[in-house]
Amino acid sequence: MTLSNQEVLTKNTFSPTEQTLHSEIGDHVMQMFTSSHKGKSLETQIDEIVNDFSLDFLTTLNANTNVDIDELIRKFGDSKIPSQPIDFESYFQYLGDNIVSNSIHTSSPQFIGHMTSALPSFVRPLAKLMTAMNQNAVKIETAKALSFCEREALAMMHRQIYDFSDNFYTQHIQNNQSTLGILVSGGTTANITALWCARNKSLGAKNEFLGIEKAGLTAALNFYGYKGAVVIGSELMHFSFDKAADLMGISTQNLIRVPVDSNNRVKIQALRQTVAECREQNLHIIAIVGIAGTTDSGCVDPLEEIAEIAQENNVHFHVDAAWGGPVIFSQKHRHKLAGIEKADSVTIDGHKQLYLPMGIGMVFFRDPYLASSIEKQASYTMRKGSFDLGKRALEGSRPGMALFLHAGLKLIGLKGYEFLIDEGIRKTQYMAARISAMPEFELLAEPDTNLLIYRYIPEQLRGVVAKNQLTEIDNQLINELNEHLQKLQRQIGRTFISRTTKTTIISGKENPVIAMRAVIANPLTTEADIDAVLNDQIQIVTEISRSYFPDNDELAKSY
Amino acid sequence: MTLSNQEVLTKNTFSPTEQTLHSEIGDHVMQMFTSSHKGKSLETQIDEIVNDFSLDFLTTLNANTNVDIDELIRKFGDSKIPSQPIDFESYFQYLGDNIVSNSIHTSSPQFIGHMTSALPSFVRPLAKLMTAMNQNAVKIETAKALSFCEREALAMMHRQIYDFSDNFYTQHIQNNQSTLGILVSGGTTANITALWCARNKSLGAKNEFLGIEKAGLTAALNFYGYKGAVVIGSELMHFSFDKAADLMGISTQNLIRVPVDSNNRVKIQALRQTVAECREQNLHIIAIVGIAGTTDSGCVDPLEEIAEIAQENNVHFHVDAAWGGPVIFSQKHRHKLAGIEKADSVTIDGHKQLYLPMGIGMVFFRDPYLASSIEKQASYTMRKGSFDLGKRALEGSRPGMALFLHAGLKLIGLKGYEFLIDEGIRKTQYMAARISAMPEFELLAEPDTNLLIYRYIPEQLRGVVAKNQLTEIDNQLINELNEHLQKLQRQIGRTFISRTTKTTIISGKENPVIAMRAVIANPLTTEADIDAVLNDQIQIVTEISRSYFPDNDELAKSY
Repeated sequence: MTLSNQEVLTKNTFSPTEQTLHSEIGDHVMQMFTSSHKGKSLETQIDEIVNDFSLDFLTTLNANTNVDIDELIRKFGDSKIPSQPIDFESYFQYLGDNIVSNSIHTSSPQFIGHMTSALPSFVRPLAKLMTAMNQNAVKIETAKALSFCEREALAMMHRQIYDFSDNFYTQHIQNNQSTLGILVSGGTTANITALWCARNKSLGAKNEFLGIEKAGLTAALNFYGYKGAVVIGSELMHFSFDKAADLMGISTQNLIRVPVDSNNRVKIQALRQTVAECREQNLHIIAIVGIAGTTDSGCVDPLEEIAEIAQENNVHFHVDAAWGGPVIFSQKHRHKLAGIEKADSVTIDGHKQLYLPMGIGMVFFRDPYLASSIEKQASYTMRKGSFDLGKRALEGSRPGMALFLHAGLKLIGLKGYEFLIDEGIRKTQYMAARISAMPEFELLAEPDTNLLIYRYIPEQLRGVVAKNQLTEIDNQLINELNEHLQKLQRQIGRTFISRTTKTTIISGKENPVIAMRAVIANPLTTEADIDAVLNDQIQIVTEISRSYFPDNDELAKSY
Repeated sequence: MTLSNQEVLTKNTFSPTEQTLHSEIGDHVMQMFTSSHKGKSLETQIDEIVNDFSLDFLTTLNANTNVDIDELIRKFGDSKIPSQPIDFESYFQYLGDNIVSNSIHTSSPQFIGHMTSALPSFVRPLAKLMTAMNQNAVKIETAKALSFCEREALAMMHRQIYDFSDNFYTQHIQNNQSTLGILVSGGTTANITALWCARNKSLGAKNEFLGIEKAGLTAALNFYGYKGAVVIGSELMHFSFDKAADLMGISTQNLIRVPVDSNNRVKIQALRQTVAECREQNLHIIAIVGIAGTTDSGCVDPLEEIAEIAQENNVHFHVDAAWGGPVIFSQKHRHKLAGIEKADSVTIDGHKQLYLPMGIGMVFFRDPYLASSIEKQASYTMRKGSFDLGKRALEGSRPGMALFLHAGLKLIGLKGYEFLIDEGIRKTQYMAARISAMPEFELLAEPDTNLLIYRYIPEQLRGVVAKNQLTEIDNQLINELNEHLQKLQRQIGRTFISRTTKTTIISGKENPVIAMRAVIANPLTTEADIDAVLNDQIQIVTEISRSYFPDNDELAKSY
């Protein structure tokens, strides 16, 4: 039985007479907050329901639900909080029928379109424990052991990146003046934090000038004699850098995007030239950004060479390794990230290739004192000299997500992460080989790591594609088909591939290319799953063509 | 048995020969990712361990652990990720012995010092479900029903604040061009987001000017003819506003802090004058901030009067109701927040008085199109016209925390929240009365809501305090005692009160006052618990005085 939102709303626990209202509500609420060792608690009952939901959800093969957006709009159209509490049973039934059943099976082995995947089973009970402990990592008074645990886990990751000496870690790991890294809610906040530190450090107090923090951007540029401030990176920088450039007041136009080569890596000569031009124009370069795993194709910039340019120009070098960072766990592939250890700051996401839940971003610093440039204090907390983690952070109150990071590093270990990374790249190479071998598809770039872009080519155009003689109109037709295919595949929901837009040159002109984007990170994805996803696409195209040409099998097949 | 970190590190699951290494690791890792309906899974086993930890933790009366900081520093000093995975049993034993047992019992009824409290039991299984579903709220392709569920939950809160018409909500609740609110990781991000929107809107594109987003702060001030940009609010603004002012490039000096009256509310005349002065000095006022629940004493600014000043000056009015927002659920007390409905933006924290887990901040907008001023797009996602929630947000990838908000509003309901708010304020009034009646304590301000500041007065000074004849030296002695008392109480760990610093005038000079700060939000806290906390403080002072005067009982008692 499915209860609509409205029915649930009216099916309340109470229909009390006015006199008894307050105490009944009070008893009901107090019961929710009370934990006891005795008997089968409400929490245990909910836990059982939730365990059933989870297990069904996690063992579903379909990637997606085929519910319509319009139906969801209708289901979630109630702006009134119920006056009386809804009873648990009705609410959890509603939750199962309306939310759980219409959610994306990000753990499905055939959901290979986004950077969200199956997670190791220990994170689920750990999520419950973290919520039970309800620590607030902002300050030591609400997160005692956790503050030190977080610093330890961050130091472990720092060491993987920078590999400094035992002495270095002994000195800094639990020193409240040092910040090896900051745990944040995600990669965007990590990137913003890195640039914020770089900006404040490079435009800091000097002589009579109080520094940008106290005096502001305009005064800082004036004092240092700059005409503006910029951040430079490849044109494939994540859109979090647009957010950072806007938020920091330097403008999105001063986020300078340098072209990439055919492998999606920043053109080093162009980068060098851009840096020189900015200096000539008297623009302050806050940071040069290198990408270790672009969002749309997983490519890695030539970090060594970028590091060299940054060093020559005495500019902060930030690496956005939100996606690709964990490749450093692989003996076989870590050379792809060579140069990352020269970065002044590095972003890595825990909820991506560390296989931890959403909400764990990290930024690491080569200089343990860099984050002092953003330090803030407050009288009710965040006292100088304390271990309060909120002193040097964009965020304030935040959950004890460090528990997941700590557990992941210990329970999966270096070798476990290496296995996961190696397997993802191996399966991506398998998929690339399959795509190259299948006439229906065109591989759009050799994969650097475990992202892959390709597209479907209709039969009548396979010849021209092979001869590299596509016209703009051909390309447009292919784009339309691929967009239609991706949307239909998503709607049918058996399998899932995302899409992105690249560019290609046709007759000397830039043309958009709509690309299928596969992300092979789910450990549960097998070669057979990859085949199934590709075959599903072929089947969907057949269905599309049948609907275009219902009476002509020949034409339909040639589509 | 307690395993040290080092012992756990060396107690690995594997000691394989080299040949079998990869496959054994692989099998071990794959097992972690596999869910099945068959048999008692690893997850179930961990779940049982975690349930025991949780229940023990939640039923402990002590507020704190008495472990030393130095011991924690020693315990968490390992910067090396283990090569091989640690076995589950050892790790969870380590976790229990070192992390859980040394964490703060934020749910203890005698932990009444911070804005962190017991939570309703349904959030714990829900945390597991959210983690199992692993939705990424950044985009519809990874958070289908959840995107709509989040919009619905935010609309419910919006309606509580603004109470617009049915038509308004029908039009905006699921309209992808409208943003009634944004779910963020916490109040800091909410405040930053609100000011970011206000800044971008007020310095937006006009005629040939592209707007601050594209052209930057300096160009925007130039174009509009301003000498600088400021944010104005009471001196008690949360330190997240310092972060915002720094990050946005306007400088912390241009975060203008107006003095408060003896009730910790911004002085309206001074505010009016500051606004006038800024206008005379040609400074752009990005926003005027009103506080609904100051962090250190829970006081509420005169929001109606601030709204009037903002309106007269055509300035964005932001209300930081991170703490106090849910007071609007109380028929009896909501008048204290009168004027909040006139705010252009409002911050409320879910993890404070909505009794939800850490990681739920919210910002609400009177104008559903205001957040367009920070909209960003990207080709791989965040397409214009989509329901992708990450388009208009500071953050990118983020967890499905909306599940908690939705469940809280439905399972606790208006009346349930009203009960919680009313009870907190009632018990605070009880505590204030007790403090006033006890000679040992001095109440430092009448509580507005459910925060309370007071201090301990040693016996020999109670007379001068009563006659309001404290000298600077007396005050300093009291400060030292209260700081010592709070630290010792925290260290002993039976009960907990936080501390803050206020100021007082002695002989015409500002003097710091170290204050005890009680936060009465935990539904489990009874009047007897409040008595116990106060008595614990008296007992600790007795112990202190005995240690100061070990041989003189008379002197000790007089301390």
